[in-house]
Amino acid sequence: MKYIYLLGATGSIGRQTLDIIKDNPHAFKLIGASLGRNDKDNDQILSEFPLEIACLRTNEKLNLYQKKYPDTTFTIGTEGLIDIVKYPKPGLVVNALSGSVGLMPTVVAIKQKKNIALANKETLVMAGDLINQYLKDYSVTLFPIDSEHSAIWQTLAHERFEDIEKIVITASGGAFRDLNRDELNDVTVEDALRHPNWSMGPKVTIDSATMMNKGLEIIEAHHLFQLPYEKIETMLHKESIVHGMAYFKDGTVKASLGVSDMRIPIAYALTYPNRSTYPKTLDLKQLTFQAMDFDRFPLLALAYHVGRQGGLLPTVMNAANEAAVKLFIEEKITFLGIEEIVIRTVRQFKNKENPTLEDILETDQSIQQSIIEYYEKR
Amino acid sequence: MKYIYLLGATGSIGRQTLDIIKDNPHAFKLIGASLGRNDKDNDQILSEFPLEIACLRTNEKLNLYQKKYPDTTFTIGTEGLIDIVKYPKPGLVVNALSGSVGLMPTVVAIKQKKNIALANKETLVMAGDLINQYLKDYSVTLFPIDSEHSAIWQTLAHERFEDIEKIVITASGGAFRDLNRDELNDVTVEDALRHPNWSMGPKVTIDSATMMNKGLEIIEAHHLFQLPYEKIETMLHKESIVHGMAYFKDGTVKASLGVSDMRIPIAYALTYPNRSTYPKTLDLKQLTFQAMDFDRFPLLALAYHVGRQGGLLPTVMNAANEAAVKLFIEEKITFLGIEEIVIRTVRQFKNKENPTLEDILETDQSIQQSIIEYYEKR
Repeated sequence: MKYIYLLGATGSIGRQTLDIIKDNPHAFKLIGASLGRNDKDNDQILSEFPLEIACLRTNEKLNLYQKKYPDTTFTIGTEGLIDIVKYPKPGLVVNALSGSVGLMPTVVAIKQKKNIALANKETLVMAGDLINQYLKDYSVTLFPIDSEHSAIWQTLAHERFEDIEKIVITASGGAFRDLNRDELNDVTVEDALRHPNWSMGPKVTIDSATMMNKGLEIIEAHHLFQLPYEKIETMLHKESIVHGMAYFKDGTVKASLGVSDMRIPIAYALTYPNRSTYPKTLDLKQLTFQAMDFDRFPLLALAYHVGRQGGLLPTVMNAANEAAVKLFIEEKITFLGIEEIVIRTVRQFKNKENPTLEDILETDQSIQQSIIEYYEKR
Repeated sequence: MKYIYLLGATGSIGRQTLDIIKDNPHAFKLIGASLGRNDKDNDQILSEFPLEIACLRTNEKLNLYQKKYPDTTFTIGTEGLIDIVKYPKPGLVVNALSGSVGLMPTVVAIKQKKNIALANKETLVMAGDLINQYLKDYSVTLFPIDSEHSAIWQTLAHERFEDIEKIVITASGGAFRDLNRDELNDVTVEDALRHPNWSMGPKVTIDSATMMNKGLEIIEAHHLFQLPYEKIETMLHKESIVHGMAYFKDGTVKASLGVSDMRIPIAYALTYPNRSTYPKTLDLKQLTFQAMDFDRFPLLALAYHVGRQGGLLPTVMNAANEAAVKLFIEEKITFLGIEEIVIRTVRQFKNKENPTLEDILETDQSIQQSIIEYYEKR
C-alpha cells in the first residue's frame, strides 16, 4: 500500500490521479490532498476519500468543512500546501499544481525525503539546478508525469548516458497549428482552448497553442535528463501518438507511443517500476513528422535561448507567460499579446547567475504582479 | 578486446560483421571464421585478418590455402564449423550461417560456454526448446542479430515479463507486396531478389517475398522472448523504419526504429550493453502501418500453425522452404511453387512431440533431400 499526497486534486491531472487511486484501492491510499475553489468538487473528494489532511485555498469556509469532516485536519493556502507535504507519514507526493505555486511544495517534499511524481513543470523550469542538487542531497527520486517526459524517461531505461545522441519531444502543434501568423490576429480564447488531441487544463492548453508549453518542456527535459540543449529536439507530430523519442549514437531510435490519455503517464509515475492496466489498445495507421518551425513559434525559440542562459531568465519567461495567459483568458490581451509580453519581459530583464530559491520566488512574484497590474489598470 | 568467431564470413551478414570488426580494431579480434566458395573473397579475409583457425567448404584447395597462410589452422566442411566453435579460447560466436547447417554449431558453442550473436534463424526455428534448455544449463547468452528481434529485445530492456501485452514484428512486405495473388503467377527469380528496403542475401530476400521470413521470425521470437504465439503479432510497415514494437498492459508502446542497415543490429549484438557509433541519422517523415493479410501471405498463417504445434513441424516447414527456395533460384519451380511445396510437405507430415536433436537433424536432411530429388528428376 503506497500512501499518496495529491497537490492540485481538483485540476485535470489531479482528477485523473484520483481515478487511478480509486481504481486501485489495494495499491494506493490517499492521505492528503489540496482542494480547489469549487465546493461541490471538494465535497466529492472529501466524502469519497477519508483524508487525514486537506488544504483549502482560503479560510473562508474552514468551519463548515471542519464540521462536516471532523476527522480531517484542514490547512489553508500556500502555507497549507507545505503542511501537507510535511505530514509525518511517508508517501509519494503527486505535484499536480499549475504554475509557479508548485515550486515550494516540491522543495519541501524533497527535504522531507518524500519521492515526487511531478506534473508541475514550473518546478524544474524555475529552479531545476537547485532541485537536482536537493534530490541528490536527500536521495529522493522524481518521476515525471508530463507525457513527453514520461515517454523519454521510458526510452532511456537501461541505456548508458554517453550513448544518447539526442532526445526528441514531439508537439501536436496545439489548437492553431494549421493557421499562419497573420491568421492568429483574430483568434479567441474559446478557439485557443480547443486542443486537437489532448484534454487538459486551460493553462497548458493555451501554452500548447503558443508552443510555450514545448518551451517549458525542453527546459524541464534539460533538468530531468541532465542533457544539454543541443541534445534536446522538438518535432511536429500531429497525431500525438509518439510522445517522445531517444536517438542513440549507434543509429537506434527508441520511441514511446500511446493514446493521448494522461492517465497512462500518471499511472506509470505512481506504479513505477510496475505497470498498471489500461483498457484501450493503440491502433496504428499513419504517423507523420515535420521539422519544428521556429519562425512560426517564436516562444519555443525563446525558450531555447532562455534555457541556455539559465540563471533567473527561465523564471522570468515562465512568470511573464503565466501572467499573460491569465490576461488572455480574462480577454484583456489578444492571443499574440501573450508572445509580445513574454518576449519583451525576457528582453528587458537583467539576468542573474546562480540565483537562490529566494531570488527565484521573489522574481516570479514581482514579474507576475507588475504585468498583471499594468494590464489590469489599462 | 573481445575475441570473435565468425561463421558465414562471406555471406551478407558475415561481410558486414567483418566491416564492424575492421572499424573497431581495439574492441574486437577475429580469431576464427568459416569461409565461402569464392577464393578471391576468402583471400581477402585471410590476408586482412590473421586468423588462428579458418574453415573451408571442401578440402579441394586445402594445400594451396595452407601454403599461402601457414599460421592458420584450416578445417573442412560442417565438421570444420564445429572445430571453429570448439577452438580453445573464449570469445563470442557470430553465427551468420544461412539455413539448417547453422543449428549444430550453435549447440556446440553453447556447450563450449561461448556466448552467441545469432543471425541464423533456423537454429531457433528447428530446435528452440532444446536451445533454450542448453542456454540455461550452460549459462550462456544469445544475442539476436535479426533486425526485428534486436529491436524487440531493446524495447523489452528493463521491462517485467508480466507487463508485456504483445510484441509486434514489422514486415516490409518484400518484393511483391503491391502484387495480388494472381499477379504472382508470372514473377521471376530476378523480380523476387529485388527487395524494396533491405540489401540481404538471396535466401532471406526470397523468404521476404513469400513472407516465410516473417513466419520463421515469429517462431524465432517465440523462443527468444518465451512468449506464446497469441502475444506475437506481425504488421505491414512498408517503410521498414520501425523494426519492432512492444505493447505493455498499461497502454504504453515502445518502438525501436532505425535506417534499414543490418550493421546496426549486428554491432549491437557485438557491443552489448554498449553502443557503437553509426554515421547516419534517421530522418522521420511518415510511417504507415497496415494489418497483416494472412490470405495474401498463406505461409505466414502456416508458420503460426506450425509454431503452435511445435515438435518436428517447424523443422519440416523450414526444410521444405529451404529446398523450395533453392529450386526456385535454380528456376526449377515457380514462385508460387514455393508455397505449394511448403504447405503440402507440412500437411503430409506426421508430427512428433519432444524431438531429440538427432530427430531434428535427420528430419531436416530427409525432407530437403526428398524434395530436391523429386524436382531435379522431373
